[in-house]
This record gives sequence, structure tokens and C-alpha cells, in this order.
Amino acid sequence: MTIRVTIWNEYLHEKNNPEAIKIYPEGIHETLKKHLSSEKDFVIRTATLEQPEHGLTEEVLENTDVLIWWGHMAHGKVQDEVVQRVADRVRRGMGAILLHSSHASKLMKALTGCSGRLLWRENNEKQIMWNLKPFHPVTQGIGEYIIIDGEETYGEPFGIPNPDELLFISWFSGGNVFRSGWIKNIENGKLFYFQPGHETFPSYNNPQVIRVIKNAVRYLKPAGFTEHTKSIWLKEPVVE
Amino acid sequence: MTIRVTIWNEYLHEKNNPEAIKIYPEGIHETLKKHLSSEKDFVIRTATLEQPEHGLTEEVLENTDVLIWWGHMAHGKVQDEVVQRVADRVRRGMGAILLHSSHASKLMKALTGCSGRLLWRENNEKQIMWNLKPFHPVTQGIGEYIIIDGEETYGEPFGIPNPDELLFISWFSGGNVFRSGWIKNIENGKLFYFQPGHETFPSYNNPQVIRVIKNAVRYLKPAGFTEHTKSIWLKEPVVE
Amino acid sequence: MTIRVTIWNEYLHEKNNPEAIKIYPEGIHETLKKHLSSEKDFVIRTATLEQPEHGLTEEVLENTDVLIWWGHMAHGKVQDEVVQRVADRVRRGMGAILLHSSHASKLMKALTGCSGRLLWRENNEKQIMWNLKPFHPVTQGIGEYIIIDGEETYGEPFGIPNPDELLFISWFSGGNVFRSGWIKNIENGKLFYFQPGHETFPSYNNPQVIRVIKNAVRYLKPAGFTEHTKSIWLKEPVVE
Amino acid sequence: MTIRVTIWNEYLHEKNNPEAIKIYPEGIHETLKKHLSSEKDFVIRTATLEQPEHGLTEEVLENTDVLIWWGHMAHGKVQDEVVQRVADRVRRGMGAILLHSSHASKLMKALTGCSGRLLWRENNEKQIMWNLKPFHPVTQGIGEYIIIDGEETYGEPFGIPNPDELLFISWFSGGNVFRSGWIKNIENGKLFYFQPGHETFPSYNNPQVIRVIKNAVRYLKPAGFTEHTKSIWLKEPVVE
Repeated sequence: MTIRVTIWNEYLHEKNNPEAIKIYPEGIHETLKKHLSSEKDFVIRTATLEQPEHGLTEEVLENTDVLIWWGHMAHGKVQDEVVQRVADRVRRGMGAILLHSSHASKLMKALTGCSGRLLWRENNEKQIMWNLKPFHPVTQGIGEYIIIDGEETYGEPFGIPNPDELLFISWFSGGNVFRSGWIKNIENGKLFYFQPGHETFPSYNNPQVIRVIKNAVRYLKPAGFTEHTKSIWLKEPVVE
Repeated sequence: MTIRVTIWNEYLHEKNNPEAIKIYPEGIHETLKKHLSSEKDFVIRTATLEQPEHGLTEEVLENTDVLIWWGHMAHGKVQDEVVQRVADRVRRGMGAILLHSSHASKLMKALTGCSGRLLWRENNEKQIMWNLKPFHPVTQGIGEYIIIDGEETYGEPFGIPNPDELLFISWFSGGNVFRSGWIKNIENGKLFYFQPGHETFPSYNNPQVIRVIKNAVRYLKPAGFTEHTKSIWLKEPVVE
Repeated sequence: MTIRVTIWNEYLHEKNNPEAIKIYPEGIHETLKKHLSSEKDFVIRTATLEQPEHGLTEEVLENTDVLIWWGHMAHGKVQDEVVQRVADRVRRGMGAILLHSSHASKLMKALTGCSGRLLWRENNEKQIMWNLKPFHPVTQGIGEYIIIDGEETYGEPFGIPNPDELLFISWFSGGNVFRSGWIKNIENGKLFYFQPGHETFPSYNNPQVIRVIKNAVRYLKPAGFTEHTKSIWLKEPVVE
Repeated sequence: MTIRVTIWNEYLHEKNNPEAIKIYPEGIHETLKKHLSSEKDFVIRTATLEQPEHGLTEEVLENTDVLIWWGHMAHGKVQDEVVQRVADRVRRGMGAILLHSSHASKLMKALTGCSGRLLWRENNEKQIMWNLKPFHPVTQGIGEYIIIDGEETYGEPFGIPNPDELLFISWFSGGNVFRSGWIKNIENGKLFYFQPGHETFPSYNNPQVIRVIKNAVRYLKPAGFTEHTKSIWLKEPVVE
């Protein structure tokens, strides 16, 4: 049985910033697609900000089991209507993987009720991402920690709700800590936030980072979708 | 030290529906205000849908510690901008008490990321609301349960995130159960959802229901407010 | 790949109480084993109180993925050493399904830190068990609710920690409500508490009840086991 | 209204280890008592391992609102009966503050169901303890973080249940991270785990560390105590 994955990318840095272009010449979405394609049961499509409806039409979303989202400099340009459409699909069952700077996206706020605020610094710091749950499906194959030699630093306090499952906490050489990987059940769907992936670092070519994303796609695949999220009027009582 | 409370009410049923007018002749907000006024440290104001900016200007919100919200038939008429303003104030520390049919409000969705969907039936059923946490600040003075002789029936599954504190589960004579009272931390603020209060039942004249609301106002009063919910750029590392 | 299931039963009522003997002539453990045997990948053994070490030797536990536990009148007779052995195995990864009156077992207390206290009444009441999570792996095939025509009544407040996943809330005709099915992560393992199954009612012949137990066995199967639960001394820092 | 605090200390290192004696000449319990005595509404007593019943008789516990616990080298010498007595008092409402190496105490296991396992290293590392909840009652007066120049290093994965409130995450200069402060509701009581305080470091003379402990005493004070934690038989249904 296949898993239908849609990778959404803002796709702006990788057309304008030489550093980003060098690492992700066809865009972060294409790099992710290439790596995830090793999984033969994943059916993958991509979508970007500049497409009509940002590539996330009703039809696309109705045929997506797990959505991967990467946004950064243009959060404000994402149409509210599309955000609501995506959020509603998550409430009905779709998995959503929010990567890196998507912490500040409209989608993050729509799904968590929180701002996603954090501390940040571009200082090329060493990151050690500790695995808190060695036998969780999302951390299989990872080992004790993932070391990333250079990344953008993110730090607590992170403006999120209490996670349902906290998987990774990171150490940064400049003195910060950060909840880098966690899951929140959003009604019938699941949200996985995963921090690595600034556009000027090659974290999406790191095999451990990719392994986590692949594992998460499998874990977030829904058993099914509710038809709608409207309240239901029951004419008759269940018992008399 | 005072607690600044703003009671917001849609205030439509009580101007048009004879049954509602009979029970709440000046509106649900005025009934609540009257009851809450027994607490000498509460400084209470009211606001309604038809006022400019629904009565919830920046100035009003910046001077509110705890907001009480009642909406039902006109959720769609609440301006998105006001919803975002209220939600942002909650993220910064304000308490929010969402009453009854506010489960389907834009504010509920903005704060929880979920739809608030449920089952419902107007059948004048008996409700027994069980107190799960006898020593929680919000349940003080309540005892084992609250019996309400007739209320609108709400039933599970209720489309909400995992509550941080589950205080009440209700039994309805028609065979349904419902999580009637629960708290969710929304970044620096707290949300308390509390189910009783259909416009055609006198639940807001029930002393136990009022006691819960008073207790909740005290529990949700924030220790302080963050200045903003934006991410902060740290020029320098914490350690070298 | 097989799942190694051990069904533990106190096995006292079904040797002495005529009502229980009539429903479970070979004991609750044998009834459960018979039903679960339809799953070809389950390798099932049973164990009872009166066996040496209650049938739960180191060797048995080291070869168990998911343990099902039913106890009632003889909680105090279970040796503390065996309880600690079982609890330690759960912390290292084993799933544990605690049925019905196991709410008051030493094992429940050892795994949750709480007493499991509740209200109860034998009154042959109708029970409606509402499914809160229609797309959770444990509720697949169940539908909106399970109706049980007669069961022992259990009621809130239930002395448990905040569940990580709340799956079922029940309505009883006598006016009580109860969190009948919920999951708690216990370090590397999972605990599933499931309420139906008083010894004088045929609930373990109810296909929906059995379906939930089968689903739970699959959901609680661990990805792996930690070697021990001792703290580890790190001679060297991770970074210099 | 007073808060009755009992400070329990193993009190062995400070009688035998010259380094510990130098910092805590009368024992960690006396140092804590001295600092906490600035709070005029705290009525403080101490108790130690070598006293009869470890100083924690029924009478002492029945007159304790919040218990502070420090243990390290002699966890195994604490009598099981006393551990159960303390744990039962917590389930009935008492607050419990478990300090530093109490992560491995019998009490920690009895209250959480988990092992408390962690990584550790004595390497005199710098610790930065980040405040995740700036407006939580327990973090008032602390600011962004607490810096401790030298402490024993503790590291994730930490064998604990999902905290109900996560307050502090620490960074250690050797590359580790640790959930240093968190709260878990244990039925009617609250457990606060707080990491600083190895016997050879003067962390209990750090004003910020002491401030957190004082705040926690206030936050953990119960509104009241349940009479027992036994299940209750209800002869009559609530409704007919």
C-alpha cells in the first residue's frame, strides 16, 4: 500500500541566494524528493508557493496522506484560505511535517494555537540532537544522537503547546537548547515539527536527518480520514 | 490586587428568542457580570458582537487579564482580525474562558488548532457533571458532581487536543458523555473550556456553575504578560 | 514476525464462583487465549497466580512482547518481587494491557504511581463505551461506540495520571462516567488500561471487546527493548 | 496560613566526604532549612535516613504539606514501607520536591512508574538551565536562565513519564542536555523534580536555585487532602 506524500517548499532562497543554490540547486523540495524516492511505497509530488493556490488545491490535498512543509522568508504570502484548507485536512487525518523555519508559518499557528516564537542566531554552530526515545518509530536507525557540524541556532523558550511526544532535544555550541523534534496530535491528524534545515546548510543531505523524515512519513500516515469536521446533530437519544 | 475581566457575548439570541429573553433579559453577559460582581477584586467590563471591533479593541484587550467568551449563531460574523488579536493576547498570557457553544468559534480553532466538533441534541436531558479533580483550584466548593436538570446534550467524540488538565466529564440521560471542563496551556496563557450554558436553559443562574467560572477566573489570571510573541535574534552566543 | 503474548490471570473466581464458572469454565485466561488465537502471528502462553513465581519467571518475561493482566480478589497475594520484575520489563519496552479490576493491582500502582481508586457498584447496568479516536490503531473496526448490556459499574474520579492517549469514555445507566480505555507511555513501554470484564459478565465473549484487545496487542508490541534501566556513566564528554 | 515543609536528607556524604562537609557542614537539609526560613509562613522540620522510620512517621507525614527529598548513595537503605507511606501521602495531596540524585530513588520510581535512568559524568562542567515558562509560578524571579559554573553533568535520555509541565532544560558544556525541572501530577498531589545539587557543589547556596525551590513549595502546597485512596462502593445508583 502506498503513502501519498506532498512536499511543499516556499522555493525562494534557492533561486536567489548563491549559498542556497549551491547546496540545493533545484530547491529543497527536489532534494527531499530525491532522497525520499528510495522508499518504493512513497508516491511523491511537490508543490511551491508560486504555483496557483500554492500547488495545494483541494484535489491535491484530498490525495495527500502526509504533507511536508518548508517555509521561511515568505510566510506572509501564503494565502489564508490555503492555510485553512491544509489545517482542515490535518484535523481530518493528514500528517504534517513542519521543517525548520516553518515554526513561524501560518500553518504552525493554525495547527497549534501558538506563535512558535524562539531565539535564533546564525553563527554556524555545532548541534548535537539527542534522541530521547530510542524505540519510537520515528527514531529507528538513529542511535543516541545526530551530530550536525554547522546549523542555524534555535533556542528555548519555544512557543509551542505541550508536545504529546517529545523525541529530540538539541545542544548548540553557543549555549542554547531546543526541542528539535516533537509530535502533537491535531484531532485526527498528527503534526511533527523537526528543526534541522536552514537553507545555507546541507542538513537535508545528512542521512540521519533524512532517515528521521522517512520514519516520520510512515508514522504520520493516517489509518483513515474523517469525512468532515463539522458537529453532528443527533435527532434521537442513544437510549430512551 | 484586582483581576480585570472582560465578558464577551454574541448577544443575539437574547434579543430575538423569547425563551432566551425570559431567562437572560439583559443578555448572558449581564447575568454573568451580575453574578461575578460578588467578587470584590474583579473589575468587570462587557463587550458584544455589534460594538465596533466587537468591543475588543487593542486598548480593551491590553487591559484584560481574563476574557470570557460566549458565541453561538454568529461565529462567522466575528472578524478574523479581532480573533487574531484575542488569540495573540492569550499567547502572551491572558486567560480565556470559552463557554458552551464557543466550542465552534473561530477563537476555539485559533487557540487549539482543532475544530471543536462534537455530537449535539436539544432534548432537555438531565446532565451529571463529574468532578475529576476534587482539589483543583477550579473545582473548589463543587463537591462530587454538578447536576443540571435540563441542558442541551453535547457528546464525544469532541474535536480537541489532549487537554493539559481534565476537570469534568458529563453524563447525559440520552446516553452521551462529554469532556465538559478542561484546561489547555496556550503558550503563556491558559484556555478553559466549560460546557454548560445553552441560551434556553438557566445554567448561568446555577450557583455551582457560577462558582466554577469564578474559580476559573482566579486560576487563569496570569502572573504577567510577555511583550510580544516574535522570535528574538541573539547577536551573540551565550557562551564562547 | 510473531508477537509473543502472555496472558496472566489470577484464576480464583472461575474455580469457586458458580456464575463465573458458567461463563469462563476454563478461566478468563483460556477464553482470552482462544479468541486471540485467531491471529496467526500471536504466539500465546498463559500464566496464573498459583504457579511458581506466578508463572512469570525471568525467562517468561524476557520472551514476552505484550503481557495481559487480569486480577481482582487477590492483588495482595502477588509477590512484590514479581511485580517489580514485570514493571521493569515494561520500562524496558514490554507492552502491558491491564484489564478491568487490575486498576487496583500492585502492577497498576507500580507503573503509574497512582492508586487507581474509583467508584464502583454491582448493579447490572447498561454501559455505552464511546470511541473518542476513530482512527487510532486500537479502535479500528469498533465504530462509534460499544454497547455492553450489563457490566459492573465503574465511576470517576479515577485515580490515574493524565493519560497520553484517551480512547474510550463510558456511560453507565446508573449515572456514572468512566475513562474505560487509555494509554500511558511508561518509559520505553506502553500501558493500556481497558475496563470491561467483571468475572460474572460475558464481556470477553463480546467481539468488539476482543477486537480492541487484539488491536492493543499489535499497538503495544515494542520496536525493541533497552538492555537495562540503570543510569550510565559517561567517562568522556561528548565535546571537548 | 502556614505551609508545613519537611526536608528529608540521606545525610551521609556530609558526614564522610571532606568536600561535601566543607560546603554543607551541617548537612544539605540544614542548608536548605536555613535558606527557606526566610519565608515566614513556612514551618520547617527536617528528617534523615538514620532516624527511626527515617524520621517520616505517619504523624510527621500527616502534618506535612510539601516534602523535599535528597538521596544519593543509600537509596537501597530506605525502607519500602516508608516509601509506600510517602507515596500514598503524595497521591492524597502532598507535594513532593525530588532533588538531584533522587532521580534514582525508590520514591521516584514509586511516584512515576519509571526508572529515572539518565547519563551522568562528574566533570565540573558549566551548566545553563533555560527557563521554558517565564510566567509559571515556579520560575518567578528567575529570568531567562540560571548559570551554574560547575555541576555534575546529567544527560538525556531521562527515564521519566511525559511531564505535565516542563519548566527547565539544561545545557552542559560537555555536550549534554537534560530536562532539569518538571512537574507531574500524581493523583491529588504534585511531584517537582529539580536537578541541581550534587553534594560537592554549592548549588544550594545559589540564590536562583533557592528561589526556584521556594516557589515550588508554594506551588505544590495542596488545596486539601483526600481521606484515603481506596475505591468506594456506591450502594445506590446516582439516577434510577
